[in-house]
Parts: sequence; structure tokens; C-alpha cells
Amino acid sequence: MTFSTRITVRFGDCDPAGLVYYPALFHYCHVAMEEFFAARCGKSYARWMEEERVGFPTVEARAEFSAPFVYGDEVEVEVFVSRVGNSSATFEYRLRRAGEGDLRARATLVQVSMQLDARRAVPIPEELRLAFAQSAD
Amino acid sequence: MTFSTRITVRFGDCDPAGLVYYPALFHYCHVAMEEFFAARCGKSYARWMEEERVGFPTVEARAEFSAPFVYGDEVEVEVFVSRVGNSSATFEYRLRRAGEGDLRARATLVQVSMQLDARRAVPIPEELRLAFAQSAD
Amino acid sequence: MTFSTRITVRFGDCDPAGLVYYPALFHYCHVAMEEFFAARCGKSYARWMEEERVGFPTVEARAEFSAPFVYGDEVEVEVFVSRVGNSSATFEYRLRRAGEGDLRARATLVQVSMQLDARRAVPIPEELRLAFAQSAD
Amino acid sequence: MTFSTRITVRFGDCDPAGLVYYPALFHYCHVAMEEFFAARCGKSYARWMEEERVGFPTVEARAEFSAPFVYGDEVEVEVFVSRVGNSSATFEYRLRRAGEGDLRARATLVQVSMQLDARRAVPIPEELRLAFAQSAD
Repeated sequence: MTFSTRITVRFGDCDPAGLVYYPALFHYCHVAMEEFFAARCGKSYARWMEEERVGFPTVEARAEFSAPFVYGDEVEVEVFVSRVGNSSATFEYRLRRAGEGDLRARATLVQVSMQLDARRAVPIPEELRLAFAQSAD
Repeated sequence: MTFSTRITVRFGDCDPAGLVYYPALFHYCHVAMEEFFAARCGKSYARWMEEERVGFPTVEARAEFSAPFVYGDEVEVEVFVSRVGNSSATFEYRLRRAGEGDLRARATLVQVSMQLDARRAVPIPEELRLAFAQSAD
Repeated sequence: MTFSTRITVRFGDCDPAGLVYYPALFHYCHVAMEEFFAARCGKSYARWMEEERVGFPTVEARAEFSAPFVYGDEVEVEVFVSRVGNSSATFEYRLRRAGEGDLRARATLVQVSMQLDARRAVPIPEELRLAFAQSAD
Repeated sequence: MTFSTRITVRFGDCDPAGLVYYPALFHYCHVAMEEFFAARCGKSYARWMEEERVGFPTVEARAEFSAPFVYGDEVEVEVFVSRVGNSSATFEYRLRRAGEGDLRARATLVQVSMQLDARRAVPIPEELRLAFAQSAD
């Protein structure tokens, strides 16, 4: 079952036009990835970083924002991994207003498995590879 | 001549891995767009919003981050408009470390001309259309 | 009973020293105030703004950060109003790691009741005055 | 001569009420401190952190926001150190609209000299102590 999480739009996320400032939507995707790690990857992203010294910086991003989110909205974010390579993984995000069917935004983010001290790409740890692969089932 | 502006990486822009948090890179693009408006579009983005009630929310984003920015970096951001439609424009961003030739990130952002009170798309004002078209020369 | 809410420290809230960037702690206080409105003030802060055109900008802030929060922490924020004036209210925040007794941060924020269109101070609406007063019981 | 620096209010710093979100004002103070380090402390805050492994987390904050900043404003921030202790220093910030005399905000922030690896307080390095002391002259 696809993982999803809810994020409340905060006053500070919104701009003078009353819409969620679009970099904040990418922040929501990162938050959703952190929740995905906590729920599906054995331990939190924080602990993967601290205990295994591995992180997942973003190397590529694509997004479509077909309808805005505004202050007062609750955002439902669906997360799954569509492709698992040797040292990179492609995360997919689908954003809706909670309780509504219509997609308001979608994003595709390619993350690289990075050893944090040397700051270089490393193969994705086996436990994560499995969790990533299962997320799309 | 292509417009470019410098942005200093701030402590608060960086994450625990020591890199610029990638949503902050999109914020840098927005900042660069605001500087482009101030320099090339007759008046600032703030005044376009306030006096003409027009804004440019983002409907599409694509970016590649080929090398990270870290705390202490100065970022040179080049901005130009590659396509001007009736009510949308495609902004291009090229990010380098100041003084270096290598591209570390690039982004393409499609902005829609929006009437702020009605929150609907409107044709791009003529003065802006001209400024956008000239930016790529 | 004092209102409290939980906030998960996010990757993007933390700085290169690995600690929550202190302006983000003030953001947490604002988030906690928003949750307090949703739970105790009849309608959400978003709806108070939209329907009644009233907001609560900050005019004074005091805080002590006695121990840092780090990535991976869950923050328990207690909120109550210690003083309700004619057009201003003093909000108190107590921040702890979830499940721990020790206070890691405390903040006192004075908010002014502002009519959003005229941007001037107005008396606090009666319904809110009551909710604020009861929060300290 | 007191150090001061200019900060342009960014679209993303402002909230749906059209004002600078107050945690962003604390971010401006941090930015001004970073500029103060670059101009007056021999090397940038980034290099103090990287080369000397010393940082200055905030342990106390007090601020008054007497008039708001809005989108389109240019903020002039004056910075000086009012007290230099053994391992802590008190930074003072005065915020005005550029070119205006009236103070719109002021903040006092107590920073502790922290060794970044051990995460514990250490005496302020002599070179910084001198720069801090001279800032108030």
C-alpha cells in the first residue's frame, strides 16, 4: 500500500499572494520523505544519517503545480519510489487537498545515496533498497 | 546581456549535512527573479504586485543539481526568459560559485501571469513581455 | 488543562551545526499557536483571518534556549495565554523533548489583535478573549 | 563606527497578511551577524566554524517589533556587541527602513561560544573578543 502522510499548511509557508510559496512545497516533499523513512525504512532519516552516516541529497527535481494550496489547507502527500538504481533512487510525490481526489501537485525527485563524511555517492544500503522497491507495490 | 545576481549562502539555508537544503535553492531562484524584475522590468516585483495586482506563481519546475553549494559559498545566478507565451513565461536559471565557470545547478521554472484578486491567469502585461523577450538576447 | 502539541524537528529546520536554527524555534511557537487556535478558539487561525479579517502579529518576543533541539527530536510545546489586554495578549510557550520533564526552551510572545485590511489594532474579539483567558486555568 | 548592513525583504519572507513573518526578522538578525563577522572579525562565520570549529548558538532572545516591515522594504540593520563575557556575548540589533531614522524593530541576542565537535561552551577566542569589544565604540 502506497505510503501517504498529512501536512498542515502553516501561516509561515504562505506568501503575500496567499498561496503556499513554491519552495515550501518542495519542503513538504522532503517532510513526506522523512515520514516515509520513519514508517517504512526501519529507522528514521535522522538515525540513518547519524548511525549509518548516509544521506540522500537531491540531484534532480521535476514538479507540476496544477492548482495552488492556500493557508488553511491540509495537504495529503503520497510517496513512493519509482526507480531504484545502484546509488540513486527516484521518489514520486502526489499532493492533494486532504479528502479530495484531484491532484494539485506532483513532484519527481532523484536522490543520491551519499556517505556524509566523504561526501561521495555510495551504493544504497540493502535494507533501504528493499524498502524503496516495496513502496511502489 | 544576460542578467545575473549574487546570493550569499546563509547559515540558516544549510542543513545538518552541511549542504544548502535544496528547497532553499529554489528560493534563490525566486530571489534572482525578484532582482531581475528590479533591474530589468521597470519596477520591482513588489510594486508590480501592489500597483498592477499581477503576480507570477510557479506552475512547473525542473532542476538539476550537479554539485552542491555549501555554507560559505557565494552563488552567482544567471537569469533569462527562454519562452514568452500569452499568459506564461519560462525562466531559466544557471547557478555557479561566484568566479567559477562550472555550472553547479540549473533550473527551469514556468510562471503564470496571475491577476491577484481574482486569482486567475491573465495575459502578460506588454511592458513585461518586452523585458522578458529582451532578457535572452 | 493546558494545551500542548507535538512538532517533529525537520531536516530543513536544522543548521550545519546540527541544531535547530533558532528562528525555526520561533516558527514552532507560531505553529503551536495555530494548533491552539484550531483546538480552543472555535475556528482555525486561517478562518479567523479569512472570515473575521483579524490577525495577531507579534510586537514583543522574549525567549530562553537552555538546551538545544537536534535533528531527530520530537518537541512538545505547551501553550497558554498569561495576560489578556484590550487589544493585545501574551502567549507563553514551554518547549520540551517529548516525554521528558526538563524545559529546553521557553518563550513569551506579545501578539496584537490587528484588523487585516486597515492594518490597525482592534479590541480582541470576545470569543477569543474568553478562550485566551481559559487557557491558563 | 557601528557596523550596519542592508537586507532586502524577499517575497518568501512575507506572510499572507503581507508582513514579514516575525521568525524571518530573527533570520535577518542572524544574517546581519554573519555580515558583521565577514566585515569585522578577520574571517567569515563559515570559516570560524570550519577552521576553528567554533560557533555561536543563541541562548537568549529579546525583541520589540514596533512597526512592521512589508514586502518591498529594504531593511537597514545596525549590529554591535554590548557585553562580552567569558564564553558569551550579547549582540544588539537595530532595524530601520533604509533611509529612515525611526526604529521599527530592535533585538538583543545572547550567543554562547561553542566548540562544535564537543558541543560545549568554550571561552571566546581572543581575536573575536577584541572585535566584539570594538564594535560598540
